[in-house]
Amino acid sequence: MSIVTPDIVRPDRAIIEGLRTIGSATAAGELYKLGIKNPHMAGLTTWNKEQSVVGPALTLQWMPKREDMTANHEYADTELQLHRHAMYHTQPGDIIVVDARGDLSAGVFGEMMLTYFKGRGGIGVVIDGCVRDWPHVEPLGLGMWMRGVTPNHGWQHTIMPFAVNVPIACAGVLVMPGDIIIADNDGAIVVPVKLAPELIKKAQEKNEWEEFTRLKLATGGDLRKYYPLNAEAEAEYTAWLAEQKASASPQPAATRPRKRTKKAE
Amino acid sequence: MSIVTPDIVRPDRAIIEGLRTIGSATAAGELYKLGIKNPHMAGLTTWNKEQSVVGPALTLQWMPKREDMTANHEYADTELQLHRHAMYHTQPGDIIVVDARGDLSAGVFGEMMLTYFKGRGGIGVVIDGCVRDWPHVEPLGLGMWMRGVTPNHGWQHTIMPFAVNVPIACAGVLVMPGDIIIADNDGAIVVPVKLAPELIKKAQEKNEWEEFTRLKLATGGDLRKYYPLNAEAEAEYTAWLAEQKASASPQPAATRPRKRTKKAE
Amino acid sequence: MSIVTPDIVRPDRAIIEGLRTIGSATAAGELYKLGIKNPHMAGLTTWNKEQSVVGPALTLQWMPKREDMTANHEYADTELQLHRHAMYHTQPGDIIVVDARGDLSAGVFGEMMLTYFKGRGGIGVVIDGCVRDWPHVEPLGLGMWMRGVTPNHGWQHTIMPFAVNVPIACAGVLVMPGDIIIADNDGAIVVPVKLAPELIKKAQEKNEWEEFTRLKLATGGDLRKYYPLNAEAEAEYTAWLAEQKASASPQPAATRPRKRTKKAE
Amino acid sequence: MSIVTPDIVRPDRAIIEGLRTIGSATAAGELYKLGIKNPHMAGLTTWNKEQSVVGPALTLQWMPKREDMTANHEYADTELQLHRHAMYHTQPGDIIVVDARGDLSAGVFGEMMLTYFKGRGGIGVVIDGCVRDWPHVEPLGLGMWMRGVTPNHGWQHTIMPFAVNVPIACAGVLVMPGDIIIADNDGAIVVPVKLAPELIKKAQEKNEWEEFTRLKLATGGDLRKYYPLNAEAEAEYTAWLAEQKASASPQPAATRPRKRTKKAE
Amino acid sequence: MSIVTPDIVRPDRAIIEGLRTIGSATAAGELYKLGIKNPHMAGLTTWNKEQSVVGPALTLQWMPKREDMTANHEYADTELQLHRHAMYHTQPGDIIVVDARGDLSAGVFGEMMLTYFKGRGGIGVVIDGCVRDWPHVEPLGLGMWMRGVTPNHGWQHTIMPFAVNVPIACAGVLVMPGDIIIADNDGAIVVPVKLAPELIKKAQEKNEWEEFTRLKLATGGDLRKYYPLNAEAEAEYTAWLAEQKASASPQPAATRPRKRTKKAE
Amino acid sequence: MSIVTPDIVRPDRAIIEGLRTIGSATAAGELYKLGIKNPHMAGLTTWNKEQSVVGPALTLQWMPKREDMTANHEYADTELQLHRHAMYHTQPGDIIVVDARGDLSAGVFGEMMLTYFKGRGGIGVVIDGCVRDWPHVEPLGLGMWMRGVTPNHGWQHTIMPFAVNVPIACAGVLVMPGDIIIADNDGAIVVPVKLAPELIKKAQEKNEWEEFTRLKLATGGDLRKYYPLNAEAEAEYTAWLAEQKASASPQPAATRPRKRTKKAE
Repeated sequence: MSIVTPDIVRPDRAIIEGLRTIGSATAAGELYKLGIKNPHMAGLTTWNKEQSVVGPALTLQWMPKREDMTANHEYADTELQLHRHAMYHTQPGDIIVVDARGDLSAGVFGEMMLTYFKGRGGIGVVIDGCVRDWPHVEPLGLGMWMRGVTPNHGWQHTIMPFAVNVPIACAGVLVMPGDIIIADNDGAIVVPVKLAPELIKKAQEKNEWEEFTRLKLATGGDLRKYYPLNAEAEAEYTAWLAEQKASASPQPAATRPRKRTKKAE
Repeated sequence: MSIVTPDIVRPDRAIIEGLRTIGSATAAGELYKLGIKNPHMAGLTTWNKEQSVVGPALTLQWMPKREDMTANHEYADTELQLHRHAMYHTQPGDIIVVDARGDLSAGVFGEMMLTYFKGRGGIGVVIDGCVRDWPHVEPLGLGMWMRGVTPNHGWQHTIMPFAVNVPIACAGVLVMPGDIIIADNDGAIVVPVKLAPELIKKAQEKNEWEEFTRLKLATGGDLRKYYPLNAEAEAEYTAWLAEQKASASPQPAATRPRKRTKKAE
Repeated sequence: MSIVTPDIVRPDRAIIEGLRTIGSATAAGELYKLGIKNPHMAGLTTWNKEQSVVGPALTLQWMPKREDMTANHEYADTELQLHRHAMYHTQPGDIIVVDARGDLSAGVFGEMMLTYFKGRGGIGVVIDGCVRDWPHVEPLGLGMWMRGVTPNHGWQHTIMPFAVNVPIACAGVLVMPGDIIIADNDGAIVVPVKLAPELIKKAQEKNEWEEFTRLKLATGGDLRKYYPLNAEAEAEYTAWLAEQKASASPQPAATRPRKRTKKAE
Repeated sequence: MSIVTPDIVRPDRAIIEGLRTIGSATAAGELYKLGIKNPHMAGLTTWNKEQSVVGPALTLQWMPKREDMTANHEYADTELQLHRHAMYHTQPGDIIVVDARGDLSAGVFGEMMLTYFKGRGGIGVVIDGCVRDWPHVEPLGLGMWMRGVTPNHGWQHTIMPFAVNVPIACAGVLVMPGDIIIADNDGAIVVPVKLAPELIKKAQEKNEWEEFTRLKLATGGDLRKYYPLNAEAEAEYTAWLAEQKASASPQPAATRPRKRTKKAE
Repeated sequence: MSIVTPDIVRPDRAIIEGLRTIGSATAAGELYKLGIKNPHMAGLTTWNKEQSVVGPALTLQWMPKREDMTANHEYADTELQLHRHAMYHTQPGDIIVVDARGDLSAGVFGEMMLTYFKGRGGIGVVIDGCVRDWPHVEPLGLGMWMRGVTPNHGWQHTIMPFAVNVPIACAGVLVMPGDIIIADNDGAIVVPVKLAPELIKKAQEKNEWEEFTRLKLATGGDLRKYYPLNAEAEAEYTAWLAEQKASASPQPAATRPRKRTKKAE
Repeated sequence: MSIVTPDIVRPDRAIIEGLRTIGSATAAGELYKLGIKNPHMAGLTTWNKEQSVVGPALTLQWMPKREDMTANHEYADTELQLHRHAMYHTQPGDIIVVDARGDLSAGVFGEMMLTYFKGRGGIGVVIDGCVRDWPHVEPLGLGMWMRGVTPNHGWQHTIMPFAVNVPIACAGVLVMPGDIIIADNDGAIVVPVKLAPELIKKAQEKNEWEEFTRLKLATGGDLRKYYPLNAEAEAEYTAWLAEQKASASPQPAATRPRKRTKKAE
């Protein structure tokens, strides 16, 4: 028997690049305006801090273990293990998203699988569940969002790998194969691929006065005046902006990691 | 329409200062002796390690979202957003305590709100829920105790800000506006403001033999002998104390961050 | 009244040494082959990263508080507190495992108890619950796996220490007094003491080609070819091995912390 | 000290009467069209089957117990017990809605309180929690929706009555004092009082063909044809209707308890 | 757009008939011997007591609501609602099994859908979630196993119908389209269709002495002697059996509803 | 190997008789006054309504399944199954209390075990978990308080019977072997055997005016006046009492099932 699983359709590189300048918080806020109430896979936290990734989702579905479905625990033929098949589709920039049913006793991937994933150019791992071999997985430096880690392997106890690149529910959010994931220290969200161009456009209407506001608030300025700017603050801002330009150094002054956009807090 | 929310009555500065030398563990133990079974907002963990704060509680209550209560999602007028009003009351040394119903999909404050809070002198944030913008909030260096972080904004999904400086239940503990919060790496507790003077008094009956006990236990001394001191250990302690004084340097030897008091472990 | 609690039977030192070279992930995988489905105390996480311990389990059982069982809250006589009695049995290399019923509001040990535990040679603490005094406990450098920390003491609210060195359920796993605990960054597992010799034997059939596989996967090699090795890869491996030996430096090249064994991921 | 708690504003009797012909399922469906996503206090089930009530909400809030707030456990003066004060406001047709924090160990009312409530004309009790004395409360025949029953009294363990006729969250739904509750075998929902007139209007656009559809579906008719009616089915319906009228008996044929309205299933 | 969903392959009628004489408890015990650890959809309870059904599973999968997937909330075209499509496949004797994600605020079917289901010969409904319209659904007399009831319709709040006759996880158990469901007052279990013939065979090795054992135990007989029968009890049984036959009336003495088989309790 | 498990010490028959006239609600209220905060095994509900039992507790502890502990799944020798041993101790009037860890997939007893239990005079079953064979267990008519029912047998999935007549935690309450259980439609509570005499005494100080109060409240009397009686109401009561006696029939007028005692609601 030979198992064949579908690949995903990856979005244009430009889409990924366009989203790379937007953090998950800005994206979630803009998606809300586009009608998406909850893109956040809540409960999954970053395990390699400061990793920030954007890429298309390979998906892997785990199901409650059923002993008559032998494909998944037939050690004699590793080719029958479906979590390996998810990995075979890896291309540079891919993110693998796994519905492991929130299980804290099943390590859905271990060191070897993730070494291979990284070797193939994979950049992020989002699991409603755990990995194992954390002492050896952590140094790989992949972006990882999950519930925890465990020494158990994946189908040791109550779940088993079941399907590759099918729609999944991951931490309460529907993820379609090929949807785009944005993940950073705030968590991991899904961007429905059709909404990505509009999201990029909206997020680029960036809030130029935001740095001014931040400076003012940080020194005790009134929230009502500076966020958003009222008429008086607009005038101050215009003056400040002129002053900034006058004294600008020729080097780029980029001191913050991301282009910032207006968010409804 | 103009929203007016009540301010809190802040305790005497001396009360806050008196509590500042007591950690949350000592305070919880003493409160127990004063009749309070559970002052700990369990499940909330520190997100900026080594922060340790004491101050009065501004409170903010979130409720399940109800679409007919428009005040909270009327973006046209940010003045109708009640989480902003909680912020307006900030004075130096204040701690904001939020019942966000344990929600992991709602970021009750973001970078701008917390920049303002810090700019006004706020020192601590205790949330039965999450903030958003963590990549930019973390560097503010506020003391923060909460369940997690999320990229979603606060009323994106299932809850909404509802009332300011009313009694709230935060992580299973009743917090009255103006109660005192003590929070450190052990977690955040509430000190009913009326009990604070008695608590300070009790906690100052400090356990002078505790450093001696620690030294003995650390080198294999018998728990039954040294904690608490039995008669034999008392004699050893007296001798040790004399020796300490004889060899004492003129400078204060304060090597531990806090005055320590006896605790029932 | 004098309380006498049983001690545990400790396994041969050789058993402990034999297990020390095996991580929790390898051990869990081998235990699965020996019939144990779930040795992992899921939900408990390491609080002192990079600690890795192996040792016999002292056990301590907490029960729901019942006010007529006075032994545990009779402050006048600390000798009636059963969590102290668990500590009295500490010998060098011991690990204490505590069923604290998953409680997040009870600190089952504090600084003094754990200072004593360390002073007596204890190396690890596994709690389905919390400790208190974390600001002072963390520096002790013990291996610690637990659900959280709290400023409350242990029987302040809803549970009380109840029995020493009896069978307990810790985080969903049965632990018999004297069973062996292996704990590291992946979590804490129980090794039934009778299975330890067989486990050591199996884990020593080490997978000599694993380093070769890792190198290949890390640089994009095909998972199907290199994990496990197919015929073609076996040939490559033989050649690589010969090359390695030819160029070997006289110094040991041990760059990884643990002897690695084959795992079914 | 004398405790004074606010009464509620009760809606016009006509509003209540208008809603009485609408079941909770129809009302929830119509509220959805009016923008309310979730009016259902999920998890609360009927304990006196076949009771069906509509009326204004008295509200009672319980909070986590705090031993320094003595009003609630001062037995000497029952007038300080706030759950009694909620009862004092009872008028004929009232429903009391209680946020008891989902507690399964606190009986928020017992036989005497509920006998009084019934004696005053109260008709329904909705509790995110329990009552006690069920053997004697059940025979009172009140409509009751709750999580369970318990022999404990209300503030025996971890919660205490705290406030009367304030906004509460009951089983995940915001209930304002004076909002209207509709409760039957499907569960209990809240109708924001301002939306009630519109809800009544919409629900009265009743679906006259529904009985015809039911007959057809019950005998194997095609869902696609009869629900909703397609053109062919419309013609059948017109014929059926004519036939019905021709053979109609002079007595009203009302065989179903409620006027039925169109629902989006 | 036209939606086409796959039908299921139904097992031979003889298989269903063979299973009809076996209760869920006997079947679960025999499945355990065939290797299936947990066939029980735990947490779902019978809502129409005394119903007992056996039949093939139509499956329906609900997913977390995502507002960009419009098919499910496009009221203009009910043909895009996938829960209707599941119903279209109904044949006499079918059971519909629904993964509604344990949601207590979504009524996945209402009166009209279930009237149609019954009209088409459907016999059972198993839902990890709720139905609505219970006052009108209960009288239909279908076998129903579920978590609860709600007045809300299905996609009012957080989930939406997503796929028909795909593998689903229902209450922690994998159900393949066409698997056989056995459900009675003990709950609902899944019988993997391939295991059904063996299960029938095993369950028919009926335990003829069981009635004798029951009589003995009911009157104080020793469990060690009569369950299972020891040598002495075997002799008593033989004598009893002879006596029974001697006095047997010509009418069948079938006093119990089901052929009973040996179970390991 | 022969397994010997301890029996319990049963209280004097007079104690049981004395408690039989007190419902669980009155007993819980009185225990609270004696210092016991929470005697109620919350979450367990009656499955045979109107059963009301009082008796000593046999206890049975289940533990997480561990495959190396063979005693519990050795079918060849049923004598190694510990749940049978709990049953062997049954005497008339006994109640068996089981910590089955809240498991909804394990039926800790089935028809045969419970037939034997009833045959031996057992009267009640309290389980933090489930039984199986409910279609045949229900007709036995035992008092049963539990979380649910399941067709699975007890150690089919994740737990196993472990110890007999040891202290257990059942639904959050400590139960010692031989403690007394009172269970009725309100639920099941534990009475520490030492507190039973005092409890009986207190509960007998019966509230003679309670029937008068009930009559008054049921007809709209003021709660403040009649519960408890104020001076004016006392006078009314005295008059009413005199009138009652004057018109009393010679037969006892006991119309309520239980002697009633004053309860703090």
